[in-house]
Amino acid sequence: MSWDLLLTHASLATFTGDAPYGWQPDAAVACEDGRIAWIGSMRDLPAHQASTAREMHDLGGALVTPGLIDCHTHLVFGGDRAQEFDLRLNGATYEDISRAGGGIVSTVRATREASEDELFAQSLPRARALLADGVTTLEIKSGYGLELEAERRMLRVARRIGQTLGVHVQTSFLGLHALPPEYKDRRDDYVALVCNELLPALANEGLVDAVDAFCEGIGFTRAETQCVFEHARQLDLRVKLHAEQLSDLSGAALVAEFDGLSADHLEYLSVSGIEAMARAGTVAVLLPGAFYALRESKLPPVAALRAHDVPIAIATDCNPGTSPLLSLRLAANMACTLFRLTPEEALRGITVNAARALGLPDRGTLAVGMCADLVAWNAKQPAELCYWMGGQLVRQVWVGAMAVRP
Amino acid sequence: MSWDLLLTHASLATFTGDAPYGWQPDAAVACEDGRIAWIGSMRDLPAHQASTAREMHDLGGALVTPGLIDCHTHLVFGGDRAQEFDLRLNGATYEDISRAGGGIVSTVRATREASEDELFAQSLPRARALLADGVTTLEIKSGYGLELEAERRMLRVARRIGQTLGVHVQTSFLGLHALPPEYKDRRDDYVALVCNELLPALANEGLVDAVDAFCEGIGFTRAETQCVFEHARQLDLRVKLHAEQLSDLSGAALVAEFDGLSADHLEYLSVSGIEAMARAGTVAVLLPGAFYALRESKLPPVAALRAHDVPIAIATDCNPGTSPLLSLRLAANMACTLFRLTPEEALRGITVNAARALGLPDRGTLAVGMCADLVAWNAKQPAELCYWMGGQLVRQVWVGAMAVRP
Ligand SMILES: [Zn+2]
Ligand SMILES: [Zn+2]
Repeated sequence: MSWDLLLTHASLATFTGDAPYGWQPDAAVACEDGRIAWIGSMRDLPAHQASTAREMHDLGGALVTPGLIDCHTHLVFGGDRAQEFDLRLNGATYEDISRAGGGIVSTVRATREASEDELFAQSLPRARALLADGVTTLEIKSGYGLELEAERRMLRVARRIGQTLGVHVQTSFLGLHALPPEYKDRRDDYVALVCNELLPALANEGLVDAVDAFCEGIGFTRAETQCVFEHARQLDLRVKLHAEQLSDLSGAALVAEFDGLSADHLEYLSVSGIEAMARAGTVAVLLPGAFYALRESKLPPVAALRAHDVPIAIATDCNPGTSPLLSLRLAANMACTLFRLTPEEALRGITVNAARALGLPDRGTLAVGMCADLVAWNAKQPAELCYWMGGQLVRQVWVGAMAVRP
Repeated sequence: MSWDLLLTHASLATFTGDAPYGWQPDAAVACEDGRIAWIGSMRDLPAHQASTAREMHDLGGALVTPGLIDCHTHLVFGGDRAQEFDLRLNGATYEDISRAGGGIVSTVRATREASEDELFAQSLPRARALLADGVTTLEIKSGYGLELEAERRMLRVARRIGQTLGVHVQTSFLGLHALPPEYKDRRDDYVALVCNELLPALANEGLVDAVDAFCEGIGFTRAETQCVFEHARQLDLRVKLHAEQLSDLSGAALVAEFDGLSADHLEYLSVSGIEAMARAGTVAVLLPGAFYALRESKLPPVAALRAHDVPIAIATDCNPGTSPLLSLRLAANMACTLFRLTPEEALRGITVNAARALGLPDRGTLAVGMCADLVAWNAKQPAELCYWMGGQLVRQVWVGAMAVRP
């Protein structure tokens, strides 16, 4: 059989092996049936097979990485919160904004009011922006509907975005994101609704790849989180958690108990939480966009995560309230600048470790058998992807060896 | 005569008049001979003239602003400093990097070694990135050549970028940027070379629109700065200054004495400096990209600048060492997030006040007689331009009423 795609004279950041970045200069990658079929040095490239490849690009030394993976986004939502951003910078307090109908409630209202087509039309450009920046797999959460129909619309729109753009979308059901206004004095009823009705119904429709919750003083308690995690387990769904963002509720330890995929945010993560994550193999997803936008000063415990060998991933957390961030490269830059990750750590965080945070072992590195999701960059060295803020660095993107365009 | 370009059903941020943002909803703008010929409400649009316009766009309520103005960049340079970024995050000290040949000296070396065509090819994508983000006028400084030929190449490349992309480029001669290695023990000789040879020669060739210097402990003294400012005055060139970035050398007061266009950076600006700037009408150019990348904690005195009615501009400071920033919108977001400017202040800072920092009174607002440099956005409200980080918000750009594409 002949190769579908062959990239030659590429500088590869494979994120495998022992070299920094899994660096392999003057190399080639060949793809067949949507997977990487051959990878190695130019001098080992089998000449005959190379000559029969259907599509070939001589990259002249350009950097090639695995397609980037944004493992935590809320990018499907109605409206935006630019006016709230404006009001706050003009001195309005959170209370003023809440009284004026702002905050997450305003996003819930706009999301509920939008038809599926409207929600799709508003959300698609955000996914396109991520793709234009090199993202080929992205996670999208529900959680602004907070009722069956609207949560379903969000998840359906997430799937439709993946189909439309030709990228992989993983969904997370985030029913326990905020207490909807109509349940103001009936918390328990809402948690029961999420666990007993919304989650099983949406999972049954094939719309849910994982289950998430917002475990926080202003969100849901550890006990409420545990309730939805138990229902997820019964449905054979993996869990992840917004944990330790503003305070330490031992959410990370809880997600580890459930053999969870990831605990996300983690500014207030304790050593015992780190130990639990290390034992369970739970990924630490850091979200520097929210840290930056909220002007948080408490840093996530990066040194302790390293010391305990907890894999670190980085994501945009793209959302209208606390992280209106449409570039995963910029999230990586912020992880370096604000959290002092090395560029290699940041890039592993948006490739191999992000894949792990989504439970997708077939992507995030360049090796035979992995998905042929590839990005060729207008860059020579991997560190450039973290160094530049803004700019168009993507040269070409392939998903499953097929060229995709934002 | 008929109009060359007519935009209808636009939501205008004119930055004129008393309304926030100079807001004018459901409006039209018409252009003739590269200037704005008519601007007003849709209901006042003269029907006959409208019907004969050569090019017309119904914007369906989309936001239109003046073309953005980046009034402080160093975007022409050879090489990059991504490897240094990587080394620093892996624990190398500034001394280590300096010993390894890094720092500004490495950019000077790469810039001197590049031919004019190489320098152009390396720098053009950076200007394209700014244009893709809505910039139609940008300033570009010399200062990595530090010898006649290399400074000339930089300024020629700056002019060529403007011609190639169809945007306006203003040049600043920044001979006093760093002491070149070969003058290590002969500071006075270098200052004399800059003042007596480089500046007059390059000005004489029409390559210099303004004169800048880096007045700082690690740069040049106040007396050395004054020397080049005096020579600029003799040549009828306006001055601007890198001032009070890391310490207070009263650079802002000096630039004000010379009736300067702007003082830039200003984290350590004193009240007497602010008073001098207010008297002289000198613009305060804030550079949040460098503040962010250097993890500076000393904030520029925004409240005092407001109290003294000093106009505030915002720029990318695009440079390889301290601000590898290729998005003026992101600089505006940082000005809001880090410096607590309001979105309106940030947007005035990249339009009308940036024009003033360059001494260009014919742009930066939407009014009859102004340059027809316009951007139509995928946005409804001006605050969105500061709120989103990353993403492709530009819908279309016109310079002198001509559509330009990055
Ligand atoms: Zn989140
Ligand atoms: Zn500068």
